[in-house]
Amino acid sequence: MSEFKEKFLREAIRLSIDNINDGHGGPFGAVIVKNGEIISKAVNKVISKKDPTAHAEIEAIRIASKKLNNFHLTGCEIYTTCEPCPMCLGAIYWAQIEKIYYANTRADAKKIQFDDEYIYEEFSKHYHERKIPISQHLRNEAIKAFEAWEKKTDKINY
Amino acid sequence: MSEFKEKFLREAIRLSIDNINDGHGGPFGAVIVKNGEIISKAVNKVISKKDPTAHAEIEAIRIASKKLNNFHLTGCEIYTTCEPCPMCLGAIYWAQIEKIYYANTRADAKKIQFDDEYIYEEFSKHYHERKIPISQHLRNEAIKAFEAWEKKTDKINY
Repeated sequence: MSEFKEKFLREAIRLSIDNINDGHGGPFGAVIVKNGEIISKAVNKVISKKDPTAHAEIEAIRIASKKLNNFHLTGCEIYTTCEPCPMCLGAIYWAQIEKIYYANTRADAKKIQFDDEYIYEEFSKHYHERKIPISQHLRNEAIKAFEAWEKKTDKINY
Repeated sequence: MSEFKEKFLREAIRLSIDNINDGHGGPFGAVIVKNGEIISKAVNKVISKKDPTAHAEIEAIRIASKKLNNFHLTGCEIYTTCEPCPMCLGAIYWAQIEKIYYANTRADAKKIQFDDEYIYEEFSKHYHERKIPISQHLRNEAIKAFEAWEKKTDKINY
C-alpha cells in the first residue's frame, strides 16, 4: 500500500479512536476516496442514532452518495478500520465501490464482542438451520410487482 | 402462515406494487410488526434518495428503530416482498429481528436485473477471487482502537 493511500486508512483509524470517547457507537471508522480526495468520513453511530444499520461504512456510503448525487460510487475506494460485516460488504457491492482497504479482521472484532463472524456463518447455512427463522409465502401474489416492473418502459436500473 | 400474518405480507406486496409508479426505487416493500401491530412500512428508495442502502428492509428497520427508540428490534417480525439481499439480511441480524417472512426469491429478483445472487456468491469466495479487490493493512495501528474499547468501562454493547 502506498504512503499516499496509508494516510486515508490512518484517518479512518483516527476516527475510530475518537469515537470511543465521543460515544456515537463502536470503535469503527471509514473514509471514502475518489480521485485521491476524501469524499466522506464516518464513524459507527449505532448508539447515538439508535439505528442498527448505522455502521461506519454505511454512514460513509450515505454521505458520499448524497455528495456525488448518485447511488453508484463508481471510481471510489473505501478505507475501513475493520473488515466489513455482511451488511456493509453488501452495501459496498450495491454502491459499486471499486476497492476495499481494511485493517482489523472479523476475528479481532469478535474478540471485543462484535460478532460479524456469526452473521457470515449464518449466510452459508440452509434456511431451516438458521437462528432467525425465514420462510416463503404468497409468491404468486408478490410476483405481480416484478412482472409489472419488467414491463415498465421508463424504469431506472441500478 | 396464518391469515392474520398474511395480511402483513399482503400490505408489503401492495407497497411494492405502488412503488412501481411512485418511482422511489425498485418493486420492493417491507413491513415490521411487533405484538401483532405494524411498527413500520417502507419501500425501496434507492432512486429517489440516491442512496444505494435504501432498500425496503433497511428503510423499515430505520423507521422501526426510531419509533421504538432502540437499536434492537426484539420481538419484531419482518414481512418483505423479496428474500433479503446480503446487506438487508445482515441488517436484520444486527437488529435482532426474530422472524423473516418473504415472498419472491433471489432467483426471481435476478430475472428482473436485481442480482442479489451475485453478491451472495461473492461472500463465499476467497478474497483474492472476488470482483471487488479487498486487502488488509495497518492492523498494528487500528487494533489500538479495539484495545481501548475493551478497556472502556462504561461502554454500551450492541
